[in-house]
Amino acid sequence: MKQRMITLSQDEMPRQWYNILADMKVNPPLGIDGNPIGPEKLAKIFPMNLIEQEVSSQRWIDIPEEVLRVLSIWRPSPITRAYNLEKALGTPAKIYIKNENVSPAGSHKPNTAVAQAYYNKIAGVKKITTETGAGQWGSALAFATQQFGLDLEVYMVRVSFDQKPYRKAMMNVWGAECIPSPSNKTEFGRKVLKEMPDTPGSLGIAISEAIEQALKDPKGETRYALGSVLNHVMLHQTIIGLEAKKQLAKINEYPDVVIGCAGGGSNFAGLSFPFAIDKMHGKNVEIYAVEPTACPTLTKAPFAYDFGDVKGLTPLLAMHSLGHNFIPAPVHAGGLRYHGMAPTVSQLVINGLAKADSIDQLETFKAGVLFARTEGVIPAPETNHAIAKVIREANKATEEGKEKTILFNFSGHGLLDLAAYENYQSGNLKVYELSDDEIQKSEEILKKYPTPQKFL
Amino acid sequence: MKQRMITLSQDEMPRQWYNILADMKVNPPLGIDGNPIGPEKLAKIFPMNLIEQEVSSQRWIDIPEEVLRVLSIWRPSPITRAYNLEKALGTPAKIYIKNENVSPAGSHKPNTAVAQAYYNKIAGVKKITTETGAGQWGSALAFATQQFGLDLEVYMVRVSFDQKPYRKAMMNVWGAECIPSPSNKTEFGRKVLKEMPDTPGSLGIAISEAIEQALKDPKGETRYALGSVLNHVMLHQTIIGLEAKKQLAKINEYPDVVIGCAGGGSNFAGLSFPFAIDKMHGKNVEIYAVEPTACPTLTKAPFAYDFGDVKGLTPLLAMHSLGHNFIPAPVHAGGLRYHGMAPTVSQLVINGLAKADSIDQLETFKAGVLFARTEGVIPAPETNHAIAKVIREANKATEEGKEKTILFNFSGHGLLDLAAYENYQSGNLKVYELSDDEIQKSEEILKKYPTPQKFL
Repeated sequence: MKQRMITLSQDEMPRQWYNILADMKVNPPLGIDGNPIGPEKLAKIFPMNLIEQEVSSQRWIDIPEEVLRVLSIWRPSPITRAYNLEKALGTPAKIYIKNENVSPAGSHKPNTAVAQAYYNKIAGVKKITTETGAGQWGSALAFATQQFGLDLEVYMVRVSFDQKPYRKAMMNVWGAECIPSPSNKTEFGRKVLKEMPDTPGSLGIAISEAIEQALKDPKGETRYALGSVLNHVMLHQTIIGLEAKKQLAKINEYPDVVIGCAGGGSNFAGLSFPFAIDKMHGKNVEIYAVEPTACPTLTKAPFAYDFGDVKGLTPLLAMHSLGHNFIPAPVHAGGLRYHGMAPTVSQLVINGLAKADSIDQLETFKAGVLFARTEGVIPAPETNHAIAKVIREANKATEEGKEKTILFNFSGHGLLDLAAYENYQSGNLKVYELSDDEIQKSEEILKKYPTPQKFL
Repeated sequence: MKQRMITLSQDEMPRQWYNILADMKVNPPLGIDGNPIGPEKLAKIFPMNLIEQEVSSQRWIDIPEEVLRVLSIWRPSPITRAYNLEKALGTPAKIYIKNENVSPAGSHKPNTAVAQAYYNKIAGVKKITTETGAGQWGSALAFATQQFGLDLEVYMVRVSFDQKPYRKAMMNVWGAECIPSPSNKTEFGRKVLKEMPDTPGSLGIAISEAIEQALKDPKGETRYALGSVLNHVMLHQTIIGLEAKKQLAKINEYPDVVIGCAGGGSNFAGLSFPFAIDKMHGKNVEIYAVEPTACPTLTKAPFAYDFGDVKGLTPLLAMHSLGHNFIPAPVHAGGLRYHGMAPTVSQLVINGLAKADSIDQLETFKAGVLFARTEGVIPAPETNHAIAKVIREANKATEEGKEKTILFNFSGHGLLDLAAYENYQSGNLKVYELSDDEIQKSEEILKKYPTPQKFL
């Protein structure tokens, strides 16, 4: 029997996160430049320790003992060699799966949820508010806040709330409150409901509700949390790549290609940033971020200052963006339906340390089914984007006759997305590609903001 | 940070299963005695290699290389110390979780599904039929048959088919056909539909349909597979307990108490049989099988010869049984709603090597929510029975002031059972307890069969 799984003992778990800002010579730091909110209001949205982490340029940041304690419920996550998939493809490439689906919530999201809950806790915060689309982030934060005894209020986009009742049930099991958005609980929600009583809701509306709730706590003990895009979120995810490097080193491997899907960018950053630093120092490794053709932020959108949310409550962020009013087509990969991209990930692509590719959902589901039939686990629709790219790269290796080593982030399982697979298998899946007209519209809108500095 | 997880490398995976029949001095072997079917018909239902394994009295049976190859996709499964649960209970007991939810199907079921698919494959079988209730077994076998290139037809109880569309979608992803039962595909199904067009179906009807389909293949290339109860199924599951012993030995531990939930008995047997052999040789270990009060097979039902299915198509089995016509109350733990109990597990309880306990579903869901809020993963309703018993034992240790070591089988996650948690959290969960009248009815019915031999 060939050894498939490469594990680390808990003694070997990384004790520090890698902060890529230390190696990106952009000043002022990403994500704060052009901020129209001011530090005072920002401190009412996020706890000060996370704001400090957001702008820190320290290369290595200690992971607090209490965070390690919770992560150790499922970490280190295993790496598995995808022998069956390799065989099915007939490729000389070696494919390694970094498996983030083993967390309680089934994805990589708890890596930052746990850290954010901890920092809020020690800052004296009693309650967190957040939004969730498909539900991955909301359930991860529900698990994490429960671990630290914090209350959590999740605003879930109404259409997802109705379509995916299991996500709400999951949050409830972990003690969180899950409210369909727009709701009657906030001023903004009531305004929207009055104007559009039948609206399916949107992530933008949900963010506005969550931030409003955090700001209006009379005791000032509530803060808001975001599951992607921001620098500190990317930082917390780097444990993925740091573990992966150690695991591959154990079998004397180093990847030729590193692949992750990218919506806001956090699972991609988590795996790839620790390899990007090697590339900065001359190492030969290709890094790919994969996004849907329906929401081609990195591959087609301008690099500009834009807001993270529709209402413009977040700081202006220097990123690839389709414009904060952009509403992506309803692809099943809800986690990749985001108008922007993490500033750090955007910079990585701009300076050529990473490349971006976009794939339509038909190809991604085909890849996902092949993966499930060979390697067992059913992937999340988001993860299918990474798998589709892995297959493209493996087929390229076959054509070139090269024994390439491919590492990718299996960001989550699809057990709560099986309706999407049914849709695919019944032949009803639609392909969406963003038109050039729409891209141009985004460019026009974003022209009114200053051009951000590039890290080259 | 304390070490939570105890892993084995794949080199340390057990290479043999433990066959408890070797240590049970019952003759003729369990499960064939009183068989009204005859070996010829039996050979049309199961492949000959599995029939031979069913009656084998060889103590150690080699796990075929091809089976190990597939199991290594997720095995060895980790053991985790439940520090958070211990802390929440304030107990001096040490609680260890043997985590079977890491398999692609999310439960222990693939351990035997993979082995059965393999033996069918090498026996020249091209297609397998089976039934499934809540869907755990059907999806595990779908994953396994896909690995060996076999076709699979699953008859799923109609009410579950309608209530749990995700299970069908899961089987489809793995290439299996899933048919609501009763169906128009079989003679028996058509008969039932004619008489009761609105029937919700039952496991008994589904088994009859699956066996009929296997028997009527004109080429004789189809066989039927069962996911629990039979000796060879228990055998394949012993890899769980064999791994657990190795893992605990690594940290110089040996359990005082071993706990598993029991429906047909396979996850309980899988963990406990390798410890039962030690108990036979004088080791001091308590072993508990936990069942629902709604279906108290081991705790209240007579030990008798009975059929495994409603129509009487299986061999007569010497087991604790509520009668093959018994229909358990609709508790959420679908996998524990079975009228009988594996003959080997029945014998283990009769001769005092194991004890049985029954717990109502309200207590089990309370336990499950506490587990999810402390240890993260949301357990299957079946697994909640084991957890409730763990909590009882831990509380007993607190009262006695003893530092007891408890090991239990986390048989599966509850991500496709979240509606059950919603039911519990909204206060609508019903408690069912079987009346003495109903038990007496079972006893009367079973009197017409001969009394089986006991292993003492």
